[in-house]
Amino acid sequence: MRHALTRRGFFKGAAAAGFAATAVTSAEAAPAAAPRRFRSVVDLTHTMSPEFPTFFGVPGIELQKQFDFKKDGFNLNWWRVIEHAGTHLDAPIHFSENGATVEKIAAETLVVPLAVVDVRGRAAQNADYLLSRQDLLDWEKKNRKLPDNCCVAMLSGWGQYVGDAAKFTGSAGGVFHFPGFSPEAAEWLMKERKVTGIASDTLSLDNGPSKDFRVHTMWLPSGRWGLENVANLDKVPAAGATLVVGIAKVKDATGGPARLIALV
Amino acid sequence: MRHALTRRGFFKGAAAAGFAATAVTSAEAAPAAAPRRFRSVVDLTHTMSPEFPTFFGVPGIELQKQFDFKKDGFNLNWWRVIEHAGTHLDAPIHFSENGATVEKIAAETLVVPLAVVDVRGRAAQNADYLLSRQDLLDWEKKNRKLPDNCCVAMLSGWGQYVGDAAKFTGSAGGVFHFPGFSPEAAEWLMKERKVTGIASDTLSLDNGPSKDFRVHTMWLPSGRWGLENVANLDKVPAAGATLVVGIAKVKDATGGPARLIALV
Repeated sequence: MRHALTRRGFFKGAAAAGFAATAVTSAEAAPAAAPRRFRSVVDLTHTMSPEFPTFFGVPGIELQKQFDFKKDGFNLNWWRVIEHAGTHLDAPIHFSENGATVEKIAAETLVVPLAVVDVRGRAAQNADYLLSRQDLLDWEKKNRKLPDNCCVAMLSGWGQYVGDAAKFTGSAGGVFHFPGFSPEAAEWLMKERKVTGIASDTLSLDNGPSKDFRVHTMWLPSGRWGLENVANLDKVPAAGATLVVGIAKVKDATGGPARLIALV
Repeated sequence: MRHALTRRGFFKGAAAAGFAATAVTSAEAAPAAAPRRFRSVVDLTHTMSPEFPTFFGVPGIELQKQFDFKKDGFNLNWWRVIEHAGTHLDAPIHFSENGATVEKIAAETLVVPLAVVDVRGRAAQNADYLLSRQDLLDWEKKNRKLPDNCCVAMLSGWGQYVGDAAKFTGSAGGVFHFPGFSPEAAEWLMKERKVTGIASDTLSLDNGPSKDFRVHTMWLPSGRWGLENVANLDKVPAAGATLVVGIAKVKDATGGPARLIALV
């Protein structure tokens, strides 16, 4: 995949975007000095369970009870959990050889302005919809320029389908069908704006039928993070909220379950 | 343990504190309507790894590589993780038969004012130090009344020892030695103040030698949460910060790894 990308020369800016390679580990990416304000809290996290649809067709988590209150005086489980299931983060190392692992992502880059791009109308017409540069320009026209160090989230409407794996994955003949970011939109965000992360309310940053995972192979190696299976994006404003990415801080992890909380 | 507690009648207010039993699942516990402000971010989370000291003497996490970038084009691990290891949350169900599991803890109760009670001086003299009611009263004298729905955190100074398991656990002859909350202080917080959670920079809410885990057996069944192995409490102000508890939202969990972020 890496080699295919190089051959195609699809993302010519990879080397040029030197600053970006350390985006998530640099203190310079901290929120602006102006104070941020909020009054309420919105949970952008789906409940994770063995039933939650996964990319791999196997349960993303299993719980094993080790201590029981009646017998032991307390309850305690072990989990076996896949790093990329449920509402979760993709770290740069997920699609790179030497990118940042989760524990190296600076906390300052996990508290960021949230921009929600609503493509529900177009996604309802086309399950494979690709969020476009034009969708981003339309967001800016309605709101403001994308704020520095923000997270750009795609609201496709798919979050409502998590209880129905067939609909959520759109699986048909071995091919998934759900919306994602277009590589062109991701490239534009990397080159023309200063964006820390992208987020999707579907199973992936790339759309369902994607075979080359181009958004992953551009975005993550550049030192930025991604979020997948995000919930409740219809319950926060298009602009103005702050996203807190509560990613478990595990050494050498390529991702992991994240509690996403919007401060509005 | 539950029966011992009832016999002793230690916590007489359990039934009376009916409102408390649903504290973490009630929207009434949301932050005050006044806007909260912050300018910077402090990570209160230790990096979790198989080396992190645990209560059980076994590694709290193991990573198993399932996909490798060179071979597969991406990196991905499974984790086997204990719910109560590293910087983590205790849900009410951890020490109760029917308390709230993690996914039932309302997000509003995971974003709370943070009060840091500094007992480093006394803990340095006594590794088994119990944070007292007087420590809480002293905090209020210096700052203000504990704010409603806050988290009260003990800063014992033990966070600096996580790299040295013998010192962090204080293990000697099968008995741990590290500071914790006194049951009296916990009871006072439950009866006299409106507190959502307590947090410790040691391995437990109770101190090392505790055999009956009285703070756990009072606090958690009342519907409140706890946090253990909290990092960097010396890097936030005693009053005024907001704590975001990024607990993985797992169905039926009794706790789990939490990314703790202070907004200052």
